[in-house]
Amino acid sequence: MNNSFGHNYTITTWGESHGKALGVVIDGCPAGLELDEKDIQVFLDRRKPGQSKYTTPRNEDDKAIILSGTMEGVTTGCPISIMVENNNQKSRDYSNIANVYRPGHADYTFEEKFGIRDYRGGGRSSGRETIARVAGGAVASKILRELGVTLDCYTRAIGKYVISDSNDINMDEMDNPLYMPNDRVAFQAMDYIEECMRNSDSVGGIVECVIHGVKPGVGEPVFNKLDAKLAQAMLSIGAVKGFEIGDGFRVATSNGSNNNDEMSYQEDVVFHSNHAGGVLGGISTGQDIVFRVAIKPTPSISQKQHTIDRLHDEIDITINGRHDPIIVPRAVVVVESMAAITLLDLMMDNMTSKMDYMKEIYK
Amino acid sequence: MNNSFGHNYTITTWGESHGKALGVVIDGCPAGLELDEKDIQVFLDRRKPGQSKYTTPRNEDDKAIILSGTMEGVTTGCPISIMVENNNQKSRDYSNIANVYRPGHADYTFEEKFGIRDYRGGGRSSGRETIARVAGGAVASKILRELGVTLDCYTRAIGKYVISDSNDINMDEMDNPLYMPNDRVAFQAMDYIEECMRNSDSVGGIVECVIHGVKPGVGEPVFNKLDAKLAQAMLSIGAVKGFEIGDGFRVATSNGSNNNDEMSYQEDVVFHSNHAGGVLGGISTGQDIVFRVAIKPTPSISQKQHTIDRLHDEIDITINGRHDPIIVPRAVVVVESMAAITLLDLMMDNMTSKMDYMKEIYK
Amino acid sequence: MNNSFGHNYTITTWGESHGKALGVVIDGCPAGLELDEKDIQVFLDRRKPGQSKYTTPRNEDDKAIILSGTMEGVTTGCPISIMVENNNQKSRDYSNIANVYRPGHADYTFEEKFGIRDYRGGGRSSGRETIARVAGGAVASKILRELGVTLDCYTRAIGKYVISDSNDINMDEMDNPLYMPNDRVAFQAMDYIEECMRNSDSVGGIVECVIHGVKPGVGEPVFNKLDAKLAQAMLSIGAVKGFEIGDGFRVATSNGSNNNDEMSYQEDVVFHSNHAGGVLGGISTGQDIVFRVAIKPTPSISQKQHTIDRLHDEIDITINGRHDPIIVPRAVVVVESMAAITLLDLMMDNMTSKMDYMKEIYK
Amino acid sequence: MNNSFGHNYTITTWGESHGKALGVVIDGCPAGLELDEKDIQVFLDRRKPGQSKYTTPRNEDDKAIILSGTMEGVTTGCPISIMVENNNQKSRDYSNIANVYRPGHADYTFEEKFGIRDYRGGGRSSGRETIARVAGGAVASKILRELGVTLDCYTRAIGKYVISDSNDINMDEMDNPLYMPNDRVAFQAMDYIEECMRNSDSVGGIVECVIHGVKPGVGEPVFNKLDAKLAQAMLSIGAVKGFEIGDGFRVATSNGSNNNDEMSYQEDVVFHSNHAGGVLGGISTGQDIVFRVAIKPTPSISQKQHTIDRLHDEIDITINGRHDPIIVPRAVVVVESMAAITLLDLMMDNMTSKMDYMKEIYK
Repeated sequence: MNNSFGHNYTITTWGESHGKALGVVIDGCPAGLELDEKDIQVFLDRRKPGQSKYTTPRNEDDKAIILSGTMEGVTTGCPISIMVENNNQKSRDYSNIANVYRPGHADYTFEEKFGIRDYRGGGRSSGRETIARVAGGAVASKILRELGVTLDCYTRAIGKYVISDSNDINMDEMDNPLYMPNDRVAFQAMDYIEECMRNSDSVGGIVECVIHGVKPGVGEPVFNKLDAKLAQAMLSIGAVKGFEIGDGFRVATSNGSNNNDEMSYQEDVVFHSNHAGGVLGGISTGQDIVFRVAIKPTPSISQKQHTIDRLHDEIDITINGRHDPIIVPRAVVVVESMAAITLLDLMMDNMTSKMDYMKEIYK
Repeated sequence: MNNSFGHNYTITTWGESHGKALGVVIDGCPAGLELDEKDIQVFLDRRKPGQSKYTTPRNEDDKAIILSGTMEGVTTGCPISIMVENNNQKSRDYSNIANVYRPGHADYTFEEKFGIRDYRGGGRSSGRETIARVAGGAVASKILRELGVTLDCYTRAIGKYVISDSNDINMDEMDNPLYMPNDRVAFQAMDYIEECMRNSDSVGGIVECVIHGVKPGVGEPVFNKLDAKLAQAMLSIGAVKGFEIGDGFRVATSNGSNNNDEMSYQEDVVFHSNHAGGVLGGISTGQDIVFRVAIKPTPSISQKQHTIDRLHDEIDITINGRHDPIIVPRAVVVVESMAAITLLDLMMDNMTSKMDYMKEIYK
Repeated sequence: MNNSFGHNYTITTWGESHGKALGVVIDGCPAGLELDEKDIQVFLDRRKPGQSKYTTPRNEDDKAIILSGTMEGVTTGCPISIMVENNNQKSRDYSNIANVYRPGHADYTFEEKFGIRDYRGGGRSSGRETIARVAGGAVASKILRELGVTLDCYTRAIGKYVISDSNDINMDEMDNPLYMPNDRVAFQAMDYIEECMRNSDSVGGIVECVIHGVKPGVGEPVFNKLDAKLAQAMLSIGAVKGFEIGDGFRVATSNGSNNNDEMSYQEDVVFHSNHAGGVLGGISTGQDIVFRVAIKPTPSISQKQHTIDRLHDEIDITINGRHDPIIVPRAVVVVESMAAITLLDLMMDNMTSKMDYMKEIYK
Repeated sequence: MNNSFGHNYTITTWGESHGKALGVVIDGCPAGLELDEKDIQVFLDRRKPGQSKYTTPRNEDDKAIILSGTMEGVTTGCPISIMVENNNQKSRDYSNIANVYRPGHADYTFEEKFGIRDYRGGGRSSGRETIARVAGGAVASKILRELGVTLDCYTRAIGKYVISDSNDINMDEMDNPLYMPNDRVAFQAMDYIEECMRNSDSVGGIVECVIHGVKPGVGEPVFNKLDAKLAQAMLSIGAVKGFEIGDGFRVATSNGSNNNDEMSYQEDVVFHSNHAGGVLGGISTGQDIVFRVAIKPTPSISQKQHTIDRLHDEIDITINGRHDPIIVPRAVVVVESMAAITLLDLMMDNMTSKMDYMKEIYK
């Protein structure tokens, strides 16, 4: 089930960049949730192309159609099939890249694995694959909100332009095209991106996600730790090359005395710090869950690159057309969606952790 | 199946730090592999306590017993049950920590999740849980070797002591207690650890793993990308707080022009660099697979720490007894084991990726 | 993943009787299979309504549309999404049954489980749900044929009209509307069905399936025995109430001396009989695999029946409109499809059973 | 995960007839259940050899040892590992059957699948494999009792000796060695078994199971129907060749008018009959769940049988030693155990079916 994710709330995704459509089947959505296409569209619109000069102008509406699983605007407990049609599917001639392995892309590896690959716009390895994840994440997010959980997801860094101090993150300043919640750093980053565009180059960055309102006790002790499943979810997104939770790689230079989060009690359990990022032993502590992912620069650049083709002949290629110079801003909602799916799934798992819970439902 | 990992080659682990035993059931090991307890013991000995002054002197043999799945030294295709008895299980009095939530440990989160926790030495959240993973990894590694795949796993950094340049990694210099393949840096790190020990403190670090000999085409395109499953595998190890593949977090400051790996053909496909870490689109490229994990400092320190107990009373605790001042060296073989299991599992998955493969087996 | 079936070749189905569409996502189909919509249509046409006077005249084309997973008529290894639109979806007024629990239907149980149910034509519990299975089975069957495996599936009994002797099964006489391979018995059965129709009643029957060409060694020893997975597959079909393999329930009155199948060797392994139905210890013997399923009479009948509604008021209902007086003939292709999916999935599993197979692929 | 069963409450079993031990790992048992070895032993004793003259006198204690997952007699939510040692493992010389394929056994199929088989007492295909299932079922049954669910499981038929009328089932008359709740029929059956023993022959039969106290709403609509999972569970037991629920195969000759179960309301929902066996659309109706399984005669008989060996030479064999002339009585507790596991697992699944349930736990 390599195109499925989740144990209780499961998404199965399908579709290629230039096929007829892309979609997701959500299996395990509880019955009784109010849901219509607008709930999904608002998420899809956040990853839609053409939102700013930093994204490809590909002319796609990306309209969500719910094909099953609801009746009169309410989920029925049956699988929710959501489809987005590819209107733009026949707009290009791919003969120049059909036989070439583009550097930084999955062309060579797909061909080695399957003996065939869909060369039209990257096929299944295209960023358009994430449409299905975002649709699945929109539904998960709505359920989470009903259970008191919300997510903040944003750009933390682009190139060397970083919001260094968490105190400088201002969610009121998210209205820029980079989804970077600090206008000062965002403007610097935009200048830098434009410079890269002039150089026919692309740039990477870091997305951060903070999850609020998760009660302690969510996540499984061993292989399905909350942070382990988040890590899989994040690295499963095309361009992600790293994941860290809480202090992350900084723990390598920490000491126990400053990495442990001490505890007190003031009407509720209080932690003095959150080096752990809200997860201990794979299980939520009740604090904010904080993690970051590293996203590589767009591999499609219009500089000349050396590579080979299917016949193993060497060639220099220049990838024409306009491509996003940066993946990060459009990845923000993908990260948020995968985080929502992962967390909800483990919250559902957790409902059978105690005899007391079972007795409450089967009383 | 929260205590299982893998789709084809699956390990199911069980056991607590101070229960009768710990163990693993390996399901899906192909028949016809020569296997005896020595194959497993050599792996277990690498994580055994008492190997150096940097590890707890807990007196455990950690002897592997194969209970099923082999006949006359050959695997039969039936589940391989491996058990390690806890000889040392009754040696302590836990009354002082039975009701206390130790900072940096999973005491509080287990209690919130299950309403009960095994306070004896951390129970299921103890590092001893990794014994079962290492046994499972020993078998996976043996299969991989027969298929031409080998793994090098070592300490890359302890605190600020890092083998900065990959060229300074010398696998002939692994004979130090830190499994750090550069004697000069290792000695500096050992001095630093001893300083931390004098301060009743602990220290973190970074483990790196390089996998050689993987053919291109292994890994699944979407949710079970090779790097995504490695990320889950790694974050599922108790103290791991971060994972990165190839250039990892450095991609945030890279450009497409220097992050893409160009290709040539010289008798075989050749990449000019390996920024990707051997994986593109979740599928192996045929290059070395290179990843790193960040490991936090041991949370058990004998400095005074502020915390609460089960009744929510605040107290100061000092964790007595001798604890590893650093988790990293003993984690090396755990990282290697989980990597082997993850890779083998995806290599098995890959056997049904093409009609040609199926026709070869069912001809 | 309650709407998914299979471990390697997995179908995930979605859709309700009167929603916009129904469909299946096939995950794990090997790359390199020639496939187009005609391959699927020929299967769907076998279960289409309106084929004879014994099936509902519902005016549906049931046209298969492949939305993803193929390129230029060949599978790519990516998920194959197949959709069938419900053209007829708005044709009825359901106000009279929206609140009533029809006897023999899943109305009451869905409502109890989910707190809501899609009352339009049975929603997810409708026989139309099997469209998605048949589409998945059409693809599985095509793969199986390339591997030398074929399936014969037919009506063995309707009411008391049975093809008693296996020697009287004549696959050349399948051209009747009952898919019953013996014209004499089929005509008797047709008379009987017409009698039931005159009585506003319905009738049950037995479907038998024979699978040819399966090599010995397919199936897993314990929980995923070939016959165990077939049993799940069959009972998962709406109206099926029983499953038996080989001699089935007759073994209750057998003795070991006449139930065991003795063996000889004449150029190949030869069994003297096939009481086992081609499976021993859950693994194929290389003989024909033979199983039967019992299918209940259509629960929708236009006789007056006593029942309750959602408010627990008692009422008498008469289900108007024309309904199939018998489920059996249209179930034949559903049984065949689920059998093909189940078998293929286990054949794929089996490819990692031996080190020798792995070495052959990774040599 | 071919040696695992279940989605939430999962058993993973291991062990061969003549290995060191057999066992089960139960993953997903809720925390807070009182459990000790006696709870398991009482189930194991029901399948133990040597209980009567109709079972093999193999000298095994079959003592359950809990190795993990409980503390102070209460489950902790961590995996419960239970082991039963094979004391009797070295008692025989297998040289005469090591190379022979016994008719009715899985010798040939295991060898074809794995290229090797454990010939000692049938290895993994031995009936002793069910010890692990029974241990897993004992724990499941205890949980079910706390949730108000109980199971009655018994022998319904041996050879042609059947308790024809359900009204003649008297659970007070279960104290006979056949677990057949009607002394009159049981005595006839015992006479018949003894006749078979004198003829060096064996005999089959039917086990029936009735589950009381299941609330409506348990079971999943499509592939994991309650009856579908029961069917898999039952056919996964070695000697089972058929499964039917409610009227089962009799529905083939029923009409809708007498097969549908009409409903009324008298303080609670009341069905007038139970032809469905307590399941509609795969979901429990709240009535008793009633199913039957057909069990073949013991394949080991001491009559001369014709077969082949590994070199494909034909031989006549006589299987010496004393074997159970009938599997049925010892299978009763295995059927009950697998039913308990299956039902509990689906009851746990059902806890996430509604938003209301989730809000109740996460309020």
